[in-house]
This record gives sequence, structure tokens and C-alpha cells, in this order.
Amino acid sequence: MTATQAAPARTAGKGRGTDHQASLIVQGDDTTGVVAGVASVLARHGANIVALDQYSDNPQGGSFFQRTVFSLDGLQARLPELRADLDEPAAKYGLTCTLRDLSVPKRMAVFASRSDHCLLDLLWRHRQGQLPVSIPMVISNHPDVAEEVRNFGIPFFHVPSAGTDKSAAEAEHLRLLKDNVDFVVLARYMQILSPGFIEQAGVPIVNIHHSFLPAFIGAGPYAKAKERGVKLVGATAHYVTEDLDEGPIIEQDVVRVTHADTTADLARRGADVERAVLSRAVLWHAEDRVIRDGNHTIVFA
Amino acid sequence: MTATQAAPARTAGKGRGTDHQASLIVQGDDTTGVVAGVASVLARHGANIVALDQYSDNPQGGSFFQRTVFSLDGLQARLPELRADLDEPAAKYGLTCTLRDLSVPKRMAVFASRSDHCLLDLLWRHRQGQLPVSIPMVISNHPDVAEEVRNFGIPFFHVPSAGTDKSAAEAEHLRLLKDNVDFVVLARYMQILSPGFIEQAGVPIVNIHHSFLPAFIGAGPYAKAKERGVKLVGATAHYVTEDLDEGPIIEQDVVRVTHADTTADLARRGADVERAVLSRAVLWHAEDRVIRDGNHTIVFA
Amino acid sequence: MTATQAAPARTAGKGRGTDHQASLIVQGDDTTGVVAGVASVLARHGANIVALDQYSDNPQGGSFFQRTVFSLDGLQARLPELRADLDEPAAKYGLTCTLRDLSVPKRMAVFASRSDHCLLDLLWRHRQGQLPVSIPMVISNHPDVAEEVRNFGIPFFHVPSAGTDKSAAEAEHLRLLKDNVDFVVLARYMQILSPGFIEQAGVPIVNIHHSFLPAFIGAGPYAKAKERGVKLVGATAHYVTEDLDEGPIIEQDVVRVTHADTTADLARRGADVERAVLSRAVLWHAEDRVIRDGNHTIVFA
Amino acid sequence: MTATQAAPARTAGKGRGTDHQASLIVQGDDTTGVVAGVASVLARHGANIVALDQYSDNPQGGSFFQRTVFSLDGLQARLPELRADLDEPAAKYGLTCTLRDLSVPKRMAVFASRSDHCLLDLLWRHRQGQLPVSIPMVISNHPDVAEEVRNFGIPFFHVPSAGTDKSAAEAEHLRLLKDNVDFVVLARYMQILSPGFIEQAGVPIVNIHHSFLPAFIGAGPYAKAKERGVKLVGATAHYVTEDLDEGPIIEQDVVRVTHADTTADLARRGADVERAVLSRAVLWHAEDRVIRDGNHTIVFA
Repeated sequence: MTATQAAPARTAGKGRGTDHQASLIVQGDDTTGVVAGVASVLARHGANIVALDQYSDNPQGGSFFQRTVFSLDGLQARLPELRADLDEPAAKYGLTCTLRDLSVPKRMAVFASRSDHCLLDLLWRHRQGQLPVSIPMVISNHPDVAEEVRNFGIPFFHVPSAGTDKSAAEAEHLRLLKDNVDFVVLARYMQILSPGFIEQAGVPIVNIHHSFLPAFIGAGPYAKAKERGVKLVGATAHYVTEDLDEGPIIEQDVVRVTHADTTADLARRGADVERAVLSRAVLWHAEDRVIRDGNHTIVFA
Repeated sequence: MTATQAAPARTAGKGRGTDHQASLIVQGDDTTGVVAGVASVLARHGANIVALDQYSDNPQGGSFFQRTVFSLDGLQARLPELRADLDEPAAKYGLTCTLRDLSVPKRMAVFASRSDHCLLDLLWRHRQGQLPVSIPMVISNHPDVAEEVRNFGIPFFHVPSAGTDKSAAEAEHLRLLKDNVDFVVLARYMQILSPGFIEQAGVPIVNIHHSFLPAFIGAGPYAKAKERGVKLVGATAHYVTEDLDEGPIIEQDVVRVTHADTTADLARRGADVERAVLSRAVLWHAEDRVIRDGNHTIVFA
Repeated sequence: MTATQAAPARTAGKGRGTDHQASLIVQGDDTTGVVAGVASVLARHGANIVALDQYSDNPQGGSFFQRTVFSLDGLQARLPELRADLDEPAAKYGLTCTLRDLSVPKRMAVFASRSDHCLLDLLWRHRQGQLPVSIPMVISNHPDVAEEVRNFGIPFFHVPSAGTDKSAAEAEHLRLLKDNVDFVVLARYMQILSPGFIEQAGVPIVNIHHSFLPAFIGAGPYAKAKERGVKLVGATAHYVTEDLDEGPIIEQDVVRVTHADTTADLARRGADVERAVLSRAVLWHAEDRVIRDGNHTIVFA
Repeated sequence: MTATQAAPARTAGKGRGTDHQASLIVQGDDTTGVVAGVASVLARHGANIVALDQYSDNPQGGSFFQRTVFSLDGLQARLPELRADLDEPAAKYGLTCTLRDLSVPKRMAVFASRSDHCLLDLLWRHRQGQLPVSIPMVISNHPDVAEEVRNFGIPFFHVPSAGTDKSAAEAEHLRLLKDNVDFVVLARYMQILSPGFIEQAGVPIVNIHHSFLPAFIGAGPYAKAKERGVKLVGATAHYVTEDLDEGPIIEQDVVRVTHADTTADLARRGADVERAVLSRAVLWHAEDRVIRDGNHTIVFA
């Protein structure tokens, strides 16, 4: 794609992005009047609700989750006042309200290793205008994907991470990320992150990994799946927590395989699912469609 | 299943069915304050919103669609007053508000012919408590399924419909349906309904038919699909309008087939998709999850 | 369905059943000439090959699997001679040849407990002519489904199996099965079979169980899946071995769920997948499409 | 990806590519002895059959289709003799036998316009070693994708095709293709090919286009689908014939959409399906898995 090509128009998806739209995530105990309390503040400010999804996990004493997208002329100037006014229902009902200007894309760092299937899909979708994010950097423990990343006009940083002591690499990661990103995506990054890193990074981290029915633990999962004769291979995108690969699930999918697929075929089919699942998870995270609640997620997809 | 078996507990699905729940469908022009206006009335009555889905097809001057499920103690006694109070935002914003007590299941008549795959699936799901409907009658132009229907404890009426003049059959249908049903499901009913019947029946009619990519018009669609070598066969559930098979789509699905599938196999695979798609469409209609808007539908599934 | 209804024509699926067709399963080491050696015997007898699927897991010293369906006039009378002639390539190449007259349906016993979703689907497909099997008996540890089974004209046996000592129940099972069935299907039979029973039954046993990504071990899997926020629930059909739920997989599938699905919804969606997966597994087993090879399967679907 | 990266190992898929493998496609009338006749020739030459799929569309007087992959030491030197020996069963049974050395990848030209989703997916899979083809050229009527193509090390030719007279452009296409390619892929090439071009090109042409249930004819299909409220959008890959978009179908797939998806979303989801379907169709064509038979295909996937 040449430099002369016009920037693709921002895809206007489900309640996605114009200059005057904001998202409001409300979370708390479920009580009578919550929807009305919040909606009344928005109405008073003249905000027009574009999309609203609400979920209560139990009408008797459960939790309340709501995602609202609204449009409001002169949004940026009026956000502080709106935020202040939301304090009233928030205090009254014990809610957490998170308000975000959708015209400011989230800043996403991508970590990769040698495999480029997930990375390339993210970079391409970003260029197409399908992902409302900016990508200030791609970080890898290998130099392999440097040229590919830079062809997309994205900065690339090579941070080697060999050996058992990852502290130097992680210190470098933290230095690069600090104040520059809103979330991190591990696009088949093959290094384990330390609990300390996760805590200090201080931003959500989205990971993708292979999944099977039933699960196969440890190394060589595709070989084990082949041995057992599984008929489906899949992938799971989740938030990273200290429990490796056990964090809240954002999205999953599978693809059908047969006995005739070799272990290499399974890995290739699995890679196709991984990139599709990760792309959806990133889009939904970028659009504030995912609410974390302990170890599970509410996804207003 | 023996008479001694306890009635299955009503499956408590998404916002489904307790004694004190109601659904409220709101439809109209999209303007600022609609959500707050309606939610405030509910809050004033002490109603707790259990589920809320909202959709605007265009934030600038588009249409507004909202489905709310709420719980309210002593619901039945208080519905008239609530209904009256909703007149205020309805008038102010030009809305249509439809309020329904979810403890009263919709009454569903099923029309069938010789094929029983869709019919049986509906009867079985109803017995399982998966469909919040009552089934006052099954009507067929053939006697073949009579025993099967009555084994489920459902009344069966045989209304022959041979020949080109369907007026006697349709008159009998209307006599049976009158004031007894809230909607009709055509579960592979192989007779064409006249526009007059559709109008006089005066209730929504849900139909299921086979679908392909691309479409094959007319008789013998599976043979034509086989000839063209299609790789997917599918089914579409839709509301019946005067435009045969062209009414608003509720649900669709497909299944993969290969060259090795005979025409009979395609029809068998198609039948599997038909029963699955029709069951979902009936469930969603029964739960007020489908809003008609001209020739398309909003489905809050 | 009334007794006067004509028996449904046997669905003529992929290479499925006429009066003069047989299946031949060949299994052994992969060497040059195997296909030709077997095909030549068939050609010499004037057999016409209708379908042939072959798979070698490794062209250099791997295993060889082949399913052939052929038609041959006067098949039954000529099977013994054909079988004898196949001994020659079998001996020469070290093959196992299994020849079966497809006009004789396999005899299938179904074990069930209280849930009837898998059971009913099998009985209905059998009545439709979709499953080339006979069903001499349904056995259950509960009487609940007796009437439903007998409505299909199938014998039902109630064999209670309460308490920890299952030996009396298993002895009764063995007495009923002995020489009467070719395989057993556990259609949500909620009792664990002892290794002794599996061995003495001496026929393949097909089981269905729920599956998730990732797997959830033990009781209450749907509740655990709900807690973790899984986005897919599934089912696995497999042959029963002494390793509970770890036998060779025949078929798997999944369905998408969301945070809004209750634990009961997950179980209901899971049940839909279970009956679909089990039906396919039974069909493929009945048509000799599944070849076991250690702990995995070759499925020529 | 940098030049220092090692060439990816050729993925060893289903019967895919070693130096000594060939595919043999056999097509003709179905008669007794065909499988044995062909297999005997292979056995006599010491060829080891790696994969064999056979299909007869009717055991009584139907057509016969067979794909065999075999390995043979010193394949290239021995192909002429093997080809000559296959003439005997070919003549005897009236068969067409097509033998191809799998170590020689098919040469694929890609035609593209402005959209790069299908193009990029093919180039990336080719670089990954997932597609056993060489790509001597990409041709486009727009210069937009030139840099992207050349970044993959593939020659790019810009052949403008504006106006109604396409003869100059098609002459240039034919000049570029002549003797250089084995098949052509239209990766969202938005120009109509003339019947004369199709004939003179003389190689198979694979196309991809959007598909719906039901079909929407003409311009703006996604807008029409949106209006009708379709719940699935899909794509079809097919061979190009003189009947525009009506040629034999190779592969199809769909993806689920909802009322909340805008027309732009439908197009984006459709693009995801298009690239997946086209990649599979190209892989299968490249591996000789697709046999054309009039207006339908046998796909041994």
C-alpha cells in the first residue's frame, strides 16, 4: 500500500467512534433506580444515548453492569462537568462510573516473538481503520519481525530476553511502556511475564493461547491433541493475571480438524483461530465492551 | 415420560420468567432523554431492571428500540397503574410502549404437515420447560402426526386442505385460532396461506424455510443445490407477510455439506438446521426479544 | 405418528445401504501394493467400489487405514468366498480385514437415566430411517422414560442401580445384552461402568459427555464454566475405555454462549450440542466410518 | 520479516509435498475394476499410496472420481514411464488420468484491485509455506497495493482498466500470463472478465464473492442485506465460467451478524469470510483436491 493512499475512513461499527461520542461503564450493586439515576444525568446534559447494554447477574442482590455510548456536542469541554455530576448517582447507589472520550483511541503496545500471524492481523486491521487504537510500539525478544512492523509505519523495539533472569528485559519493557500505553497485547509473545512486571505495568494485558476440548497441559499441545484424535482446536483470549493462562476469558473460538491433519496442520489451523480470536478481543477491549468482574468478564459484543 | 415425573422446573434463562417480571418494549424516534424518561417511571414504581438492551439505528434522527425486563413485587395488581404512567414519556417522546406480564406464557398454535422434525423439537422443548409458551393446539392438513402430538398431551386438530380452494380450511383455522392464541408457528406446514387469512388471523405468524448460498428458487431446492455443488445448506425463520418467504428474518443458520452428501442427505441436514433455527426463533419471539421494524428485525438475543 | 404410516424409506446417504452393499475395513502396516492387493480381490469378484477412503499416518513405515464400500449382486451368498479370498492379501501384507454386510443393521442398545434429550433424538432419527441400526432395547436406572421409549415401539427395561454395589445391576445388564446387541450407546447414562462390565460386554460402548475450553474437572462443570466466563460449551462423543472419559474421541462440537446465559442456560445449550454430537457419532459408528487406533480414531465422515 | 530469517519449513499438510510425491486424478464412468486397475499400475512401479479418496456419484452407471497421492523414489525420472503405463487402464475403462509431480508448485497469478484483505492473506500464507504455489506476479488495475506486494518479494504489474473497452487491458493480461502461470486467482478484482479472455487465458480462474441467505442481486449487496435484517453474511469461492458468478463452487462459509452491525460492519465481517474462504479454495486447488464435473465440484478436502 503506497504512502499516497488516503487514510481509510474510520469504520463506523456498532456505536463506534465519532468526534462527539463517549462511553460510560457503570458497575456496582444492583438496586432499583440505577438505570434511571444515571440516564437522568445524561439527559440533563443533553447527551443522546446511542447504545446501551445492561446486565444484572441476579435481580435479588446481584451485581449491575452497564455500558452506555452517547453523543454530546462539544463533548471534550463538557466531560469534567458531566463526570462531576455522575458523582451523585455513583455515591447514592454505590457505583463505579468510568467515562471515556471515544475520539481518543486507546494506545496499544504489542509484544511478539517469532510468529507473526497475530501481529500482522492486528497491524493490518489497524491500517484498515478496523481497530480504534493507536500503536505506539511493537516490542519483541527477536528481531525477525522488525522490517514487517516498520513497513506498517509502526516503531519496533528489540528487547532480548534470553536466559532465566528476565529482570533486565522487564525493566526495559517498563521503561518503554511507562505513560505511553493504555494496554498491552501479547500477540504470541513466548516469554512468561513475572507477577512484578504485571503489577508495575499497571495496564490491562491481553493474551492469546491455544485451547482444546479437553485441555492439554504443558508443552507440545498440538502433538498431544493429535495423539488423542481431537476433532476441534481452538484459542482463548484472556486478561493476564498472576495465574498463568487462567485470567478472565474475553473470547474463544474453535475450528474443526480431522485425523488427516498433521500436527503441523493443527498448529496452522490453530494459528488461524488465534488471530481471529485475538482481533475480536482487542476490538472489544478498545471499544470498552469488556467489563472485568473477578475472574470472569461481561462482554457486550 | 410417565405421569409420575415431576413437572420440570421452568428454566431460568436470560431474564426469563419469575412470577413478578414483565417485559417492556419501547419503540419510536431516537431523541435525548428517552432512556431516562422511561427508566424514571420504572424507578418511581420501585421496579428493578433485570435486563436492558437498547439500539438506535442512527444517533442523528434515527429510530429507537429498547427491551427492558424488570421485576416488581405484586406485579399483576400494579400493571394498570404502571401502564398509565408510561403514557407520559410515551406521549412526550412519541413512543410506543408495550408492557407484558412474563408470568403469563404466550399461547402458541403450531401448524404442521407430514414432516415432524420441527414439530417434535418444539413439543419436546416445551415439555422440558425450555419454551415459555402454552400450546393450546396443533393443526395439520394430514392426520400423520396426531398420535405423536397427543402423546405430549397437546390437542390435535386435523383440517384437510387438499385442492385449490383453501377457503373452507382457512375458515376452520380461523375458528380454531380465534381468541385462543397469541401467535402461530408454521412448523414445516406445506400449504400457502392467503393474504386474507394472514390479515384475519391478526397474530404474528412465524415460518421456517430452507435457505442456501446462493438461493435456489422454486421446487426441488435440495436437488438444485446438489447439482450446483453447494457447500452449505441452511434455514431461515421469519415472520410471514403477504410476500411469501420474504418477511422479516428472525434467525438463520447453516451447516456444512460435501459432494458426498446425496440430495436426501442435504434434506436431512437441512432439517436439522430448520428445527434448531425455528426453536431459537420461537424462544426469542416468546420472550419478546424480537422487534419488527418494517421488513427487518431487531433481535436482542 | 400413527401406526398406519408407511415405514420411512431408508435414507440413502453417503454410500449408505442397499441390499447388496458391504463395508470392508482394512487396517495394518503401510506398504506398497496394499490398495491394489485388496482392490484386485474385489474386482475379481465383480464388486463395484462405491466409496473408498484411505489414510496413512506416515508414508514411511506408518499405519494404513482403509474403508471401502462396494456393491455386489447376490452379496450374502458370496460373502464367505470373498472373505476367504481376502485372506491372501491379508496374510501377504499383514492386514486385518473386516467385512460386513450393510443390509444387516447393527443392533444398538441405549442406556439412559433421567435426561431424555439424547435418547429422544436417537429414537426419532431411527424412526425417520436416518440411523441404519435396530434398537432391541433401552435400559435405564430410572423408570421415567419408559413410556416415551415404548411410544416409539422399542422395548424398555428398568434396571435400578442405586447404592455403591453395582454388581447386581451390571449382571442384569450383561444378561440382557448377551448376544443381542452389537454396540451400546450411553445416552447420558449417569452411572459409572466397572472395568469388568466393559470387558464382559465385549462390544463397543459409545459415550457422550460435556466438554469445555478449558476443561473443568468433576461435579458441576456448568457452574464452574459460568464462573470462569467461558464463551463456548461443547460435547465429546468417545468410545468407553477403562480410563473414564478418556477414550478415543469420535466427534466433538461446541456452541457459543455469553455472560447473560445462566448456569441453567449453559446446561440447556450443552444438551443441544450433546444430542447433535452423539447422533453423528452413532451414525458414523453404525456405518463403519470410525476406525479405532490405540487412543485415537480415524473417522471417514 | 528480515532477509536473515530462515525460510520456513514447508508445512507438511495432508499428503502435502515431499520431493518424491505425485498426485493422480482419475475421472470417468464408474465400472467394476477401476480402483484395482489403477492401483495395480502404481503397485507395479513400487509407488506407495499416501492418500486416496474416491467418490462415485451413483454405483449404477454413475461417474467415478479419484484422487491419489503416492510417493515413489526417483519420481521425476520415472513419471513418463508411469504415465505411459496408466494408458492401459485409462483405455480399458475409459478414464482420464492426470498425473502431477507435487514437488513442482503450481504457478499462481493474483489479480487484485484496491481491497487488499484477500491479497495480503494469500501473500502471507505463501510466505509462511502454507500454500504450495509460486507467485510469479500480482496484477492490479490500481497502483495502491504495489508497495505491499513488493515487500513480499513478489513482482507487481499495474494494468489500468478504466473505461468500457477492456480489450487493451486484457491483451496486456494475456501477454503477462502466457506460459507463466498455471492458474489465476481473482482476489477481489473488481473488473468483469470477457468470455474471450477466459478462453484465451486457458487456465483455471478462481474467484471469490460475497454470498448471503437469501441472495441479493446487483450493486450494494451489504446495504440490501442490512435492510432485510440478515443474520449471516458469507462468501463463495468458485471457478470462473462465462456465467458470471455462477461457476462451480469450491468453498463457502458464513459468519453471524446482528441488527447492531452497520452496513460497514457487514462488509468488514464479509471481508474476513472472503479471505478465509479464498485461502482454503486456493490451497485445495493447489493440492489437486478439487475436481470439476460440469457445474459442480468434488472436493477431497
